[in-house]
Amino acid sequence: MNVSEIARRIPEAVERLRGEGIDVLVEDLEAYGRDETEDYFETPGLVARPRSTAEVAAVLRTADALDLPVTPRGGGTGKAAAAIPAPHGMVLALGRLNRIREIDAQNRFAVVEPGVVLQDLHEACAEHGLCYPVDMSSRGSCMIGGNLATNAGGERAIKYGVTRDQVRGVEAVLMGGSVIRTGGKTSKNSAGYALHHLLVGSEGTLGVITEATLRLLTLPPYRKALLAPFESLERAADAALAVEAAGVDPSALELIERSAAALAEDMLNERLPHADAAALLLVEVEGFHEGRTEENRDRAAEILLHNGAEDVMVAPRERVWRVRHAIAEAVKQLPAYTSVDACVPRRSMPQLVHEAHKIAVQYGLEVICFGHAGDGNIHTDFIRRRHEDDSWDRNVKSAVRDYLRVVVAFGGTITGEHGLGLLRRDDLPLQLDASTIEAMRALKNAWDPKGLLNPGKILPPL
Amino acid sequence: MNVSEIARRIPEAVERLRGEGIDVLVEDLEAYGRDETEDYFETPGLVARPRSTAEVAAVLRTADALDLPVTPRGGGTGKAAAAIPAPHGMVLALGRLNRIREIDAQNRFAVVEPGVVLQDLHEACAEHGLCYPVDMSSRGSCMIGGNLATNAGGERAIKYGVTRDQVRGVEAVLMGGSVIRTGGKTSKNSAGYALHHLLVGSEGTLGVITEATLRLLTLPPYRKALLAPFESLERAADAALAVEAAGVDPSALELIERSAAALAEDMLNERLPHADAAALLLVEVEGFHEGRTEENRDRAAEILLHNGAEDVMVAPRERVWRVRHAIAEAVKQLPAYTSVDACVPRRSMPQLVHEAHKIAVQYGLEVICFGHAGDGNIHTDFIRRRHEDDSWDRNVKSAVRDYLRVVVAFGGTITGEHGLGLLRRDDLPLQLDASTIEAMRALKNAWDPKGLLNPGKILPPL
Repeated sequence: MNVSEIARRIPEAVERLRGEGIDVLVEDLEAYGRDETEDYFETPGLVARPRSTAEVAAVLRTADALDLPVTPRGGGTGKAAAAIPAPHGMVLALGRLNRIREIDAQNRFAVVEPGVVLQDLHEACAEHGLCYPVDMSSRGSCMIGGNLATNAGGERAIKYGVTRDQVRGVEAVLMGGSVIRTGGKTSKNSAGYALHHLLVGSEGTLGVITEATLRLLTLPPYRKALLAPFESLERAADAALAVEAAGVDPSALELIERSAAALAEDMLNERLPHADAAALLLVEVEGFHEGRTEENRDRAAEILLHNGAEDVMVAPRERVWRVRHAIAEAVKQLPAYTSVDACVPRRSMPQLVHEAHKIAVQYGLEVICFGHAGDGNIHTDFIRRRHEDDSWDRNVKSAVRDYLRVVVAFGGTITGEHGLGLLRRDDLPLQLDASTIEAMRALKNAWDPKGLLNPGKILPPL
Repeated sequence: MNVSEIARRIPEAVERLRGEGIDVLVEDLEAYGRDETEDYFETPGLVARPRSTAEVAAVLRTADALDLPVTPRGGGTGKAAAAIPAPHGMVLALGRLNRIREIDAQNRFAVVEPGVVLQDLHEACAEHGLCYPVDMSSRGSCMIGGNLATNAGGERAIKYGVTRDQVRGVEAVLMGGSVIRTGGKTSKNSAGYALHHLLVGSEGTLGVITEATLRLLTLPPYRKALLAPFESLERAADAALAVEAAGVDPSALELIERSAAALAEDMLNERLPHADAAALLLVEVEGFHEGRTEENRDRAAEILLHNGAEDVMVAPRERVWRVRHAIAEAVKQLPAYTSVDACVPRRSMPQLVHEAHKIAVQYGLEVICFGHAGDGNIHTDFIRRRHEDDSWDRNVKSAVRDYLRVVVAFGGTITGEHGLGLLRRDDLPLQLDASTIEAMRALKNAWDPKGLLNPGKILPPL
């Protein structure tokens, strides 16, 4: 359907949705037209803000009846343009479905709605001495629904796994309004297709998750951190792998290129030690026994020193994380940037950061690398520091493309945790062959034959 | 298609497959007509034994061209009749795709074909100081393909997760012969739909996995076991939960009802201690540090003694496991039995075993409970000890049905690790509502519109 036809039907949709008691916005919708991805924006035709599963079903029934595209939206913190609406299309904002329906401390599960902010879940779990282990920079505003939609990873995945690894069941609404439920509060389940695992990572293109059952862990009371400077990014990367392989079981292992830290330091007006190092490594260990946790930390320190660290200091933990978490925000304040969150087999990670810099030099661009070194999941941001740098417009696309080719050649994935959205959709054929993408398209067609649910995301156009 | 039409086309299929160089059996096919599920048997029309992905594709292309049903088969150790062929249909036996393509010790991944026997993978990993942590009684004959198809759990899942938790990517052949590949040797991946997670647990109804990339762990060198007798099954179940909750992180936590152990002891002509106890609990802990592993074991011992254990002994580990693993085999030698492998939220497990016995009494049947207590995943076998026990024929179906209703009322799943196959297929509507089953059927239709791939499994007939 063309854009003007969509716009023409919006008033009818507004009337129907309001008739079902659903809160609908039709003005000042700009905030719903973007997420945290640079350069993507579309103005939606309406924003529906359902408060219940039944209301989500009503929205998807209405979208189906009127052939209107509808884009689910969580906290709007996505970095792959997966929450950008179709022009004049509907946005299904899930922020009012924000109840923690249950913390089942006995069985160690949380049952949550998609609009729950990640940090709120952390705090609710901590009150029970429990822990939902997925964590990331955007914790204060990202929502569980978006975490599920992208299969978010974050900084503790090295020890506790990604979002998928925590999910034991979902309730979801499919296009047309059908409500499904699979899985539940069990650690094992072989009853039919794992629809919840198909929905996790599907970026709102297959269905809208309205409830998730998440496993919880007992909150480890002890956490110890180390900070180590290195004379080169590659040496830091090598040392990260040595720590990862040594059995100290770190709960975080973050690589921070010094120039990336500097951007955040400037923004925060706060300095980390070792301003002259090329890269920093942050290592954290967690545990239930203070002495053993300290032993693990000390063992990590030894490994760092044996693997090229110029120093190892017991980290000023909060300050280091503040800087680490501010990098993405600082990058956003530059004239231009583009982020790649590739993940490679972990032993290829040092070579990957090396290749990123080689490609940047080749194209006359600047690049910074930071992120989850222990996982092989590195944020590589090509940045434009000054507007007058004209190699940017000419070269950034080719540089990203070359970099993604290297990632795939290493056996990696072009996105480790952000998803494909609109941003990486057209790069998917670099990684997957046509038959695999075709098989994905067949599933999409099976559940959403008219292609109305978050159209244009994930699958490259035919 | 009716059975005689299928039979009529088999010679044509044999000719085509042999024309492509594929090994095809047409005689003495009885062994391919059953698995380890009681009471299920069908004679296939042919057995194809491909040696490569390309040959698997040729088999599925031929099945599609001739409209012939085809049932993939691994080690034939399944317990839900998922490997029973359609009458006169094709069997796709995967035992010759039995290469371990790679043990990537650096990145800690194994790349394996579906016909690899689980124990062979264990041994290959151990040579590299690594460990594939899924383990179960049938390790000597079950194949990775079947483990993937059922999302097998087993006895170490309490610490290391089920099969799904180890899978990072697959190559698979879809009906018609299209080959797909998703995932790979990365710990994070958000590039499109997680087709490998859809295939895991799909019991060969959606596609045939021809290669899997599995994460490996460093092999923990220390393993310590405890055996504790209890005066009642329920007390043992309560104690299991106490151990599970205490943070000693057991790698196995097995409940064995004494009458179940006795069946195995009789068969093996070997006795465990505490013949007069109502139930035994086996606790194992694993670790990288001998002292800490022993500390964990001792802590588990304390908890057992505080929770009703009549004694705690450092277990004669191999003997206990031999008996535990022989239970299923011993049960098979009885005149009749039926196994349920339900999994409930773990705190409901003691009540579940209580309800199993209540139902058995009500119907005049015998029942034994054993299995993965820490997971809430209990094997409940209704058994017929003597042929002359005529309440069996009259009552066993109703007893199982009542038991499954209790499982679902507890928020559990009717199968924790065996799958639905033909055995539990018609019970699925107890657990999932019609819209969810319909959504599963839509996926099946998308990839196998003619319904030729392992027909009749998982989804109840319309």
